[in-house]
Amino acid sequence: MSLMKEVAGRKAVDYIESGMVVGLGTGSTAYYFIDELANRIHAGELTHIVGVSTSNETTQIAREKGIQVISLDQVNQIDVLVDGADETLRTFSGIKGGGGALLYEKIVAQNSRKVIWVVGEDKVVDELGAFPLPVEVVQFGSWKLFRYFEQAGMMPSFRKSGVDSLFITDAGNYIIDLHLGSIPQPNQTAFELNNMVGVVDHGLFLNYPDVIIVGKEDGELEIIER
Amino acid sequence: MSLMKEVAGRKAVDYIESGMVVGLGTGSTAYYFIDELANRIHAGELTHIVGVSTSNETTQIAREKGIQVISLDQVNQIDVLVDGADETLRTFSGIKGGGGALLYEKIVAQNSRKVIWVVGEDKVVDELGAFPLPVEVVQFGSWKLFRYFEQAGMMPSFRKSGVDSLFITDAGNYIIDLHLGSIPQPNQTAFELNNMVGVVDHGLFLNYPDVIIVGKEDGELEIIER
Repeated sequence: MSLMKEVAGRKAVDYIESGMVVGLGTGSTAYYFIDELANRIHAGELTHIVGVSTSNETTQIAREKGIQVISLDQVNQIDVLVDGADETLRTFSGIKGGGGALLYEKIVAQNSRKVIWVVGEDKVVDELGAFPLPVEVVQFGSWKLFRYFEQAGMMPSFRKSGVDSLFITDAGNYIIDLHLGSIPQPNQTAFELNNMVGVVDHGLFLNYPDVIIVGKEDGELEIIER
Repeated sequence: MSLMKEVAGRKAVDYIESGMVVGLGTGSTAYYFIDELANRIHAGELTHIVGVSTSNETTQIAREKGIQVISLDQVNQIDVLVDGADETLRTFSGIKGGGGALLYEKIVAQNSRKVIWVVGEDKVVDELGAFPLPVEVVQFGSWKLFRYFEQAGMMPSFRKSGVDSLFITDAGNYIIDLHLGSIPQPNQTAFELNNMVGVVDHGLFLNYPDVIIVGKEDGELEIIER
């Protein structure tokens, strides 16, 4: 498990050049990218790198490793964003948000010239939806949305944080995971969620990455490029 | 100005019956409704009324007047919501959010069986958009959205709170006001905003009210019903 994540995450550093503004993804595979990026900076192989983070968690990790992190609003654009994915098609669409950072990840992706996803081979699928689709919702009225999803047969569950309390995103919202099993029409599902009052965003990232780096169990790599 | 708001706001109480769950709008015209509702409760003419509020401000006002306020998640549905509007067409669409409560107002409206708008006659227009269109946006990356709106010629301005600080909504977001002048295709504009990453919601309420109560400067009323 961990080797395929590690080879994919570390490989992505090959796409980084000195002087770049680098988007730093969230999660266990992006972690290896951040670790390798820090290694190259400390070795002097990469200079004048600034990072833009996709979560408070990533900001902390990157700073601890000595990477300079500034806010999205302080840069014009991000040159390369490296992030993970929970499921991805070979056609450059996927599901993200298992780590709860989907909103900031999508906002950073929107402002990135190049998006690279790093995943283990177990994340590459032929159809989306086996992984629960995270939907970030405004706290106010969220039980009403939950009931709506329930009645629509979308099998919702509130994301928990520990036993008793609900998970709260960096933007202060809740996450409802939809256990859809399969999402045959991702564009249609994304459209419906986008137009739902109280939904801030969702984990469907359609047509986002430019490169998908797939790490295999045996340590080999597959690079899927547009 | 104030008389037309007052007659419209107070008139809406005629739609309330004992035992109802009542949605309490935000703003100066809805204020008169809340005031009159409290009068009728204290006079014993209306009993077993519970309110569901659209903003922290309204919650405070209603409780001070002795109206029981409970959360949206504690009720199955709201029987009647009475709220103001910043602009309304006679065809039951309008712009809301001048008071900054558009998100909670829209969520409450979504869960109301009947929606009544109370407005002064100066709010009734033939085309939307002279009033700036409020867009509620996630704080993270909001300057990027601002720049996008600017480049698209949508004349954005951040809502201020005092001289130096930005207005923050009850849900913890910013508001960007779009000074569009006119919105010839409200459905198209709403669609574009709904599908924009970082936009939580916007002030276009299309096809929302069932009744529009218009107060006139001379104290007369006009009732527009479907």
